[in-house]
Amino acid sequence: MLRYVPAAECERIRALEADPFERAAAFADACRLNALYMIERAGSGHPGTTLSCLDVVSWLHLEAMREGDRYFSSKGHDAPGLYAVLAALGRLDFELIHRLRRLDGLPGHPDVAATPEVVTSTGSLGMGVSKARGFVLADRAQGRSGRVFVLTGDGELQEGQFWESLQPTANRGLHEITMIVDRNKVQSDTWVDRVSDLGDLEAKLRAFGWTVAQCDGHDLRSFAEALAGQAPGPKAIVADTRKGGGVSFMEPEGTLPRTETALYGYHSGAPGADEYERAVAEIEARLNERLARLGAGPVELVEAEPPEHRSAPKERQGLVKGGAYERAIVAQAEKEPRLVVLDADLRLDCGLVTFRARFPDRFYECGIAEQDMVSQAGAMALAGLLPVVHSFACFLSTRPNEQIYNNATEGTKVIYAGSLAGLVPGGPGHSHQSVRDISALGAVPGLSLIEPFTEAECEAALEWAVHRAPGSVYLRLVSVPWALGFDPPAIEEVVPGRGTVLRPAGDVLFVAAGPVMVAAGWHAADLLAEDGIEAGLVALPWLRDVDGAWLAEVAGGAQIVTLDNHYVTGGQGDAVLAALAAEAPDAAARVQKIGVTEVPKSGGNDEVLRAHGLDSAGIRRQVLERRPVPSPS
Amino acid sequence: MLRYVPAAECERIRALEADPFERAAAFADACRLNALYMIERAGSGHPGTTLSCLDVVSWLHLEAMREGDRYFSSKGHDAPGLYAVLAALGRLDFELIHRLRRLDGLPGHPDVAATPEVVTSTGSLGMGVSKARGFVLADRAQGRSGRVFVLTGDGELQEGQFWESLQPTANRGLHEITMIVDRNKVQSDTWVDRVSDLGDLEAKLRAFGWTVAQCDGHDLRSFAEALAGQAPGPKAIVADTRKGGGVSFMEPEGTLPRTETALYGYHSGAPGADEYERAVAEIEARLNERLARLGAGPVELVEAEPPEHRSAPKERQGLVKGGAYERAIVAQAEKEPRLVVLDADLRLDCGLVTFRARFPDRFYECGIAEQDMVSQAGAMALAGLLPVVHSFACFLSTRPNEQIYNNATEGTKVIYAGSLAGLVPGGPGHSHQSVRDISALGAVPGLSLIEPFTEAECEAALEWAVHRAPGSVYLRLVSVPWALGFDPPAIEEVVPGRGTVLRPAGDVLFVAAGPVMVAAGWHAADLLAEDGIEAGLVALPWLRDVDGAWLAEVAGGAQIVTLDNHYVTGGQGDAVLAALAAEAPDAAARVQKIGVTEVPKSGGNDEVLRAHGLDSAGIRRQVLERRPVPSPS
Repeated sequence: MLRYVPAAECERIRALEADPFERAAAFADACRLNALYMIERAGSGHPGTTLSCLDVVSWLHLEAMREGDRYFSSKGHDAPGLYAVLAALGRLDFELIHRLRRLDGLPGHPDVAATPEVVTSTGSLGMGVSKARGFVLADRAQGRSGRVFVLTGDGELQEGQFWESLQPTANRGLHEITMIVDRNKVQSDTWVDRVSDLGDLEAKLRAFGWTVAQCDGHDLRSFAEALAGQAPGPKAIVADTRKGGGVSFMEPEGTLPRTETALYGYHSGAPGADEYERAVAEIEARLNERLARLGAGPVELVEAEPPEHRSAPKERQGLVKGGAYERAIVAQAEKEPRLVVLDADLRLDCGLVTFRARFPDRFYECGIAEQDMVSQAGAMALAGLLPVVHSFACFLSTRPNEQIYNNATEGTKVIYAGSLAGLVPGGPGHSHQSVRDISALGAVPGLSLIEPFTEAECEAALEWAVHRAPGSVYLRLVSVPWALGFDPPAIEEVVPGRGTVLRPAGDVLFVAAGPVMVAAGWHAADLLAEDGIEAGLVALPWLRDVDGAWLAEVAGGAQIVTLDNHYVTGGQGDAVLAALAAEAPDAAARVQKIGVTEVPKSGGNDEVLRAHGLDSAGIRRQVLERRPVPSPS
Repeated sequence: MLRYVPAAECERIRALEADPFERAAAFADACRLNALYMIERAGSGHPGTTLSCLDVVSWLHLEAMREGDRYFSSKGHDAPGLYAVLAALGRLDFELIHRLRRLDGLPGHPDVAATPEVVTSTGSLGMGVSKARGFVLADRAQGRSGRVFVLTGDGELQEGQFWESLQPTANRGLHEITMIVDRNKVQSDTWVDRVSDLGDLEAKLRAFGWTVAQCDGHDLRSFAEALAGQAPGPKAIVADTRKGGGVSFMEPEGTLPRTETALYGYHSGAPGADEYERAVAEIEARLNERLARLGAGPVELVEAEPPEHRSAPKERQGLVKGGAYERAIVAQAEKEPRLVVLDADLRLDCGLVTFRARFPDRFYECGIAEQDMVSQAGAMALAGLLPVVHSFACFLSTRPNEQIYNNATEGTKVIYAGSLAGLVPGGPGHSHQSVRDISALGAVPGLSLIEPFTEAECEAALEWAVHRAPGSVYLRLVSVPWALGFDPPAIEEVVPGRGTVLRPAGDVLFVAAGPVMVAAGWHAADLLAEDGIEAGLVALPWLRDVDGAWLAEVAGGAQIVTLDNHYVTGGQGDAVLAALAAEAPDAAARVQKIGVTEVPKSGGNDEVLRAHGLDSAGIRRQVLERRPVPSPS
């Protein structure tokens, strides 16, 4: 059973006539309960970083900020905490706390276009201080005044943009800006100092011209003291916190060994049911102690049924974490001694735990520093290694975009593996839904782009990339284990430009890559059969270099409908169209492209696909719009 | 008359039995003469930064480096100096010094795929230390040893990737790496401390865990001392130099005022003939004094005719510097008070000098920090301003690619103006030839991409972007003033999705954007007329959102040939194809895409267009390959 602090209880705590520090600490614990409720109900979120900053975020909103001030989190994945605070203050419709990571609810990362009171969209790391400067300069230019409080993570500080943004902010003397570093010491995988140690952070910030204060981010007196006083320019407060702070078993000290292989368990996802119960019990007890000290009665929680989670189908294609890629990268490394792996603090999520354990000397952890990682890989390739570079597709295709091109012009081979590709998971929101990567990398010369739809095709794709690809390769990987709904054929190798015919072409031929769109195409074909339209399906892993003559032959006279888990512009559909226009022009006149046309929505996987018209029903509808149901003859 | 130091004279100086510091200084001056010769002969280059580091580069190559060591310049635009040194040492075919920035000669920036002895391709700033780490880690992994000397600029240090790369390098204790900062104190436009002051550089480098030494970069004893000694980890040598060092009138101290508006005159381009003569005279006299002190005879220079420069045609479309955009951005700012300009140290080259002078309070100089600039602009837009963001297209579309997307998801309006778009100028080489920007930005939702072909269309495009565009706009601008070879019609406004019919469709209809491709299409149509093929021409400024129905109507039954000053993948051709496939499918079967298919070559403008088959003859050839000459009836 889930439990939350209702609006009236939040208001009671906020309105207590009491010492403001004690009151804010109680308020923060109430928000902890609600943030955990939201994450548990959603089934995913970032509990560790949400909890670490909640005292600071509560204090800012309760006591520090004035009309005209702005607050936002640069790291962004602490969004549930911010939502809990805003809801508790009545600044956000309280009912939204039941709809974290649901369609038309609260996005997994802050989204200025989706949620009132959110100041800017974050979730791509390192942008916070740049944005803060933009706000202040725009305000000054328009005769407004107001302060900006920007929260950053500590792992986030590995990003170059963060350092790029510091000195110009100091040079302009922007005293309106206070940056709070939530130094919880643990990033996505593990301890910051095991991933990519930040060194003497305070000395660095000072060297960039900022005034620096340090405090205990769970001691609000300490934080308030650090906040006090006007600096001549921007001020940084390094708030020492504990990741998962306030839930003892989520706090790393004493639970997360400082070994090379230990991984922190509460960065993302949701706690198990037992863990959730223990966490709630601990926070509730502490909150009630605080309330008792303030002369107030205990908190009354409201119980809520967890939403019904449908059990996942058994037969799913697991491509990344613990799946095909996790196995394949090890198998390829056994065969190819030049292969080395580079990672940007996503060892777990990119399926590299096994590789790291098996080949510690061939694993290079780069931290959240994608540009540095990619240029480093380029030099490694020049010096004779075969680097395989990892991050989420949304980051890997964009942050080091120029660096990938620079490598490509050198004529070496580098393999880029971008996981978390496409619309799903829909929970994290558009900063993490990679639906622009094919376009962003599509014109990189000599780069092959491949997206497998089964575990076997994933293994074959990596085999091809390592041993047969003439140049560099971008491997696009859906991370969510996905049920196809049919038994795929065995795939032993990938053939450049060609794919697997899963259903023969009829009136229509669907062309798709990756498990999500191949499955959608399969089910849409079933639906269209009921409309009297025969639809075939090709799983085509090549996202750019398509064998147009082969595809035209497979299609026969069918209408060719491409299904893109990507913006319809610049995706596989454009590649299919271009190949046909060059090699089988008549077929080019029969292409219909279906794909993402709007900024991705945050929500459950099924509801997001549906909202974008990329579930089987939506695909059927779009096909019928272009090709009406044949009238009965 | 141009003059250079021949190979034998270089060898004589190098082989003098003499004090190594004096000898190296003489050698460096000989290289100065040859570097200036190369730049003057090429008609373009980066004299200031080439001269500032030549003492250091000479010393490294003559005395410091051992077998297995690597040297490269991260800033890259000092390439003529490196070429001069390598040629003087016999490590590069000496005859190549006559072919700087010529096809199959020496690229404007170092290119590992084009020139022996070049270690890695540079020209995109901030990548040097990342690459150095890659080399060292790859060497270690393969049991090799060797040091890496990497040279950086000081303006370059504004790039975030530089700071991103420092700490991981220190954390790994990579003592093999020595970074030399050529602190010449002037970046592209003017003094570094007027653009975006670096603050206490030595303190910063130390805070990132590097051992730091400082020296006079024109005093080789001082530099050698700084080089000496082994640090426990990576070492930074901050070499204080003078931009244009060794040519008194190119040195900024005393010649470049520290005012807001002063611009340094020798960052890029080539000195005027008189200036060249004065520079040579000064260096030659100093070199002869050095040689006399070493007991050696004076240097004997060889005279060379400058290559014949064809005088540029009078009627050219000047879109950027001093041209249409320079005027239009001021005109729009007069009408739209919310308009503010952001620049990344390219005030001169992006046509912003007039704006800066007219609206100093609305001009935000961001330094070479594109990610920071773009995120800052995003916040400004949220706060009610209309930011117009500037850099070269190659950088603006890629380095802040994720930041541009982040802004786009916020639903605000930001205008991005990317100049130096396309294959020409061909001199700087592929790091600066922006032929991937349409693709890199093509899937950004809500972003309109426009490329004007005349001054009038440029003004109309900005007018549309500021006043009528529903969302953000990317303005793609060819910087080289370009002769169309015909009188273009007046264009008073741009109409979304549509263009200007310059010649009616016949057997063929060329579709192109921008002056370079429109002119090429015009001339190709003339050539095809001789083959009996009638070709029409549409100047279509829209690079993504094309009115397919309109275009199909204009085309009639013609073969539609798109001409892309961009990789043929992901360029305007794909947009045309997509629009036709959606709105006029039959016409989609008649599309032929012509564009860039290989990494751009460095060379003269005409020879680069010819090499890529994008001159009128190459276009004619490609059309005929697809559509043979009609046999006489």
